[in-house]
Amino acid sequence: MIAWRCSSVTLALLAVQLLQVSEAKTMAEVLAAAKPPDWRAIDPANTLYMELEGGRVIIELAPQFAPKHAENIRSLVRQQYFDAQRINRSQDNFVVQWGDPAFARAGVRKPPVPAEFTRSARDLPFTVLPDPDTYAPQTGFSAGFAAARDGAQGSAWPVHCYGVVGVGRDEAPDSGDDTELYVVTGHAPRQLDRNITVVGRVVQGMELLSVVPRGPSPMGVYEKPEQHTIIKSVRVAADLPAAQRTSLEALRTDTPLFAELIEARRNRTDEWYKVRAGRIEVCNVPLPVRVSP
Amino acid sequence: MIAWRCSSVTLALLAVQLLQVSEAKTMAEVLAAAKPPDWRAIDPANTLYMELEGGRVIIELAPQFAPKHAENIRSLVRQQYFDAQRINRSQDNFVVQWGDPAFARAGVRKPPVPAEFTRSARDLPFTVLPDPDTYAPQTGFSAGFAAARDGAQGSAWPVHCYGVVGVGRDEAPDSGDDTELYVVTGHAPRQLDRNITVVGRVVQGMELLSVVPRGPSPMGVYEKPEQHTIIKSVRVAADLPAAQRTSLEALRTDTPLFAELIEARRNRTDEWYKVRAGRIEVCNVPLPVRVSP
Repeated sequence: MIAWRCSSVTLALLAVQLLQVSEAKTMAEVLAAAKPPDWRAIDPANTLYMELEGGRVIIELAPQFAPKHAENIRSLVRQQYFDAQRINRSQDNFVVQWGDPAFARAGVRKPPVPAEFTRSARDLPFTVLPDPDTYAPQTGFSAGFAAARDGAQGSAWPVHCYGVVGVGRDEAPDSGDDTELYVVTGHAPRQLDRNITVVGRVVQGMELLSVVPRGPSPMGVYEKPEQHTIIKSVRVAADLPAAQRTSLEALRTDTPLFAELIEARRNRTDEWYKVRAGRIEVCNVPLPVRVSP
Repeated sequence: MIAWRCSSVTLALLAVQLLQVSEAKTMAEVLAAAKPPDWRAIDPANTLYMELEGGRVIIELAPQFAPKHAENIRSLVRQQYFDAQRINRSQDNFVVQWGDPAFARAGVRKPPVPAEFTRSARDLPFTVLPDPDTYAPQTGFSAGFAAARDGAQGSAWPVHCYGVVGVGRDEAPDSGDDTELYVVTGHAPRQLDRNITVVGRVVQGMELLSVVPRGPSPMGVYEKPEQHTIIKSVRVAADLPAAQRTSLEALRTDTPLFAELIEARRNRTDEWYKVRAGRIEVCNVPLPVRVSP
């Protein structure tokens, strides 16, 4: 029997019905069976293109968790704040970080932005993962992001999985003004959860950021400018003509099909696996993205 | 009160005594207080040097978990099997893999080696981590490796954390003959636990392997030989003259000081953290290594 629970009773019932008529599937089989409504277009207004020498990195913003920071980043991008900025930090098994207040252009408006570490769980769609988590009372998915919550009426927050983008800050909670952003390039640093604003995740081109040469220990901050990777530009997808966009779709995380995908990964049915885990940790659940067909 | 438990009652009592007289410390403060007996020399007979263009990668073998594979790898190394071999796979957020049976030299002895996915937990020293884990009934540390077990009298196995080295295999459990090895370069792929032989971990030079350019999706296997990274040689440290060795020490994982280190990471006391996690997942516990003083 399926151990997956769903925030919507209707969806849970649908999932159970689907599974009762189907054999256990592999993830590839689940994805092959996906119908157009199982995918959602990623909103160009919430999409950033970071152009590097090696290609385009695409970030989906998370306004459901950090609306003020998403808006502020769009404002900075539209002032071309990030153009010709640099990746100035790469710490092994932790983060790659870019942007630097020291490079800030005169005249760029950087209003203070309040911390958005958590939000209310009330009214936040949340698909619950049934397996235990070391750090949070409950984990799952919300609008395409791995997330955690502390009771259905309490607080919710995005989880720091591989590829998640956050807002660097100093000691004061409100000191993150989006002029320095980072992406997780190693094992999920879950101690950061609820301590920093998560503002998005990389949905394409992560392999361009994950191989940036590491800077010196312990923090990975480069000592010489020639070690920096140059960011040619950052743009909001919606601001570009259609021909210059990369039209992406993400698999919905609130469907019976996604429940099947999770079950396929909790218990891998291919012959290679001799012991099925029977469980899955939130950051090990794939969040598939494809170019729109 | 400390929630840390220890496999040795004596050590647990010592840890509690230590903590009662000390304020909560940062990890840096814990390490600064380490005495010589808190460190152990890494045995040169269990140490491999993989020489790349960019420098030396050092792997500590795990004979406590995979004695036959450790012995077989030493045999292959001494036949220079890995010299001029290649890194032929780099899959983002998963593994970098090297060696290839197709490159096997004529005359290299490759006896079959039995799978060593798990071992008995009986008589295995094990320092228990008190926090819940998604995948295993119990996690902790054994002889310097992150590990899991299913009851003190049941089975134990190494955990697939970042930097862990394992033995590639085909579908048959015994098909891993050490001619292909991999290292974890992303979020811990815990579904591999108990499905494959873990034979060691990278203790220095991980930043040379983690940035190897990713191969094409989905598996990251390069399509062209010119994409390969060449391995100049692999040697057993004990086979080299002392002047060519890198003498390393690892922090012991069965001491009161290590219990303090874990506590320092469960509850970070520096001012930057506004919410202390209060827990830690086994792959987020640092396993410090230093050059011998």
